[in-house]
Amino acid sequence: MKFSVPKRVRFHHCDPAGIVFYPQFFYLLHEVQEDFLEHIGFPEHQLIASGVGVPIVDLKTEFLGMCRNGDALTMTLELTRIGGSSIGMQYEIHGEAGDTRLKAHGVIVYSEVPNGKPMRIPDALREALLPYLKTPPGAQPHDQKTATP
Amino acid sequence: MKFSVPKRVRFHHCDPAGIVFYPQFFYLLHEVQEDFLEHIGFPEHQLIASGVGVPIVDLKTEFLGMCRNGDALTMTLELTRIGGSSIGMQYEIHGEAGDTRLKAHGVIVYSEVPNGKPMRIPDALREALLPYLKTPPGAQPHDQKTATP
Amino acid sequence: MKFSVPKRVRFHHCDPAGIVFYPQFFYLLHEVQEDFLEHIGFPEHQLIASGVGVPIVDLKTEFLGMCRNGDALTMTLELTRIGGSSIGMQYEIHGEAGDTRLKAHGVIVYSEVPNGKPMRIPDALREALLPYLKTPPGAQPHDQKTATP
Amino acid sequence: MKFSVPKRVRFHHCDPAGIVFYPQFFYLLHEVQEDFLEHIGFPEHQLIASGVGVPIVDLKTEFLGMCRNGDALTMTLELTRIGGSSIGMQYEIHGEAGDTRLKAHGVIVYSEVPNGKPMRIPDALREALLPYLKTPPGAQPHDQKTATP
Repeated sequence: MKFSVPKRVRFHHCDPAGIVFYPQFFYLLHEVQEDFLEHIGFPEHQLIASGVGVPIVDLKTEFLGMCRNGDALTMTLELTRIGGSSIGMQYEIHGEAGDTRLKAHGVIVYSEVPNGKPMRIPDALREALLPYLKTPPGAQPHDQKTATP
Repeated sequence: MKFSVPKRVRFHHCDPAGIVFYPQFFYLLHEVQEDFLEHIGFPEHQLIASGVGVPIVDLKTEFLGMCRNGDALTMTLELTRIGGSSIGMQYEIHGEAGDTRLKAHGVIVYSEVPNGKPMRIPDALREALLPYLKTPPGAQPHDQKTATP
Repeated sequence: MKFSVPKRVRFHHCDPAGIVFYPQFFYLLHEVQEDFLEHIGFPEHQLIASGVGVPIVDLKTEFLGMCRNGDALTMTLELTRIGGSSIGMQYEIHGEAGDTRLKAHGVIVYSEVPNGKPMRIPDALREALLPYLKTPPGAQPHDQKTATP
Repeated sequence: MKFSVPKRVRFHHCDPAGIVFYPQFFYLLHEVQEDFLEHIGFPEHQLIASGVGVPIVDLKTEFLGMCRNGDALTMTLELTRIGGSSIGMQYEIHGEAGDTRLKAHGVIVYSEVPNGKPMRIPDALREALLPYLKTPPGAQPHDQKTATP
């Protein structure tokens, strides 16, 4: 299942060429991460207040189309992997015509703050993440689940 | 040859965990790009004023070590490719002990503003870029040059 | 009449002390300005696309209470003056308990881009702004209107 | 005595009109504050690491001239008041021709982190601040000092 959220390109995202300055896309991706964690019942600000962080360790981004001030974007998130501590995050940004503007894949690590030591993702969070895990081609959706269907 | 520039982690780069919030690294990388283009005699603000932009189309980043408020960083840039319109940029961020904090590889495209149409990199700029092109292992440095030594 | 919009404090607004870093408040105020202009039918991105800007010339801010990651804020905007070219903007930020966190007053100028020359606010925009003009104590609301009641 | 530091307008400071987006000025002012505190021997990141913050409580800004990508700016800081806990900071930004682009006055408070409780400015810091205290018209510079000349 994909998590999807609309975002508007704001004036402050844009550069002198009138398009989104690329580091600003990562603020938007992080907003999607926050929206997602809140949606599944684990608001990031509560995780942080409890001494947990989710720093990013790897990020690959393809910039496929320019985004301009005022553009109405749809941003999606799907998980590519739920490991012991790490989570693979696949983001896409689409324009109003459905065209793909950006694809990004990040890996975040559930960690202790401030030392950054990886911690095992708690079972309750893992359960909440599972519905968003991308099903590999050919697999049955429930293969991702731990239990019988 | 590597282009190298010192940068200080500023308060505004840091997040509630006291470390650089990852999108802020890309502001620093872009500052290095600006410093580099100015150093080789092609200030980015002059390129832009002349109707040229250098949007990024691809970016891969490994976040290898946390950077904290006040850290003195050394940032380096080397070119991995100088194509017809595109330039491969290899960045590294090192801490005071020489430890690697971040590696990134970006591809930018010399383009018309605002339509984003790729343009051929002018010869004068190409010449100025060449000394920073990474020599492949086993190659002679002058293999990168167009002419005889 | 006050224009009111909810905003959430995001991770990226916060500094190493876990509170909103003060320049980030101005991004939020500018978002409110964008939301307001869109609400009254004059989206800022369309104004800009038509060669108009609304640069700020004066800003006074009182920071009255700390805002933390995840805080649900209510932001309000009221106009203190609609001049020939300039508009007085009174912002307030309130926490969930109704406590005031910030008060700001800005003056923006309806201007030509890129030369920055002030232009007369068009009548249609003026009409749309009028309902948000703060009534001076003792005045009748329709005193603000240009015509008969 | 004025503290003075050069700053360059960076691409990331600029908006679709090609001028500095006004919240970005406050990042620059905060950089000046950091540069100043480091210059007088009290680096802000060390203050913060020791449990002290300097949140801003009041800020007044006049935006007097546009700043464009690549502009070489001179930023100055002078203190208007050194109170028990609070410090008045007078900033100015000048262009290459000496023209004034921005004037700002902020009040920061030496405070405990994270509760924000004001603390008395330590004597050593007070001594280091004193040379930058603006002399009122007609006063002798040494009037600001605590001791006899």
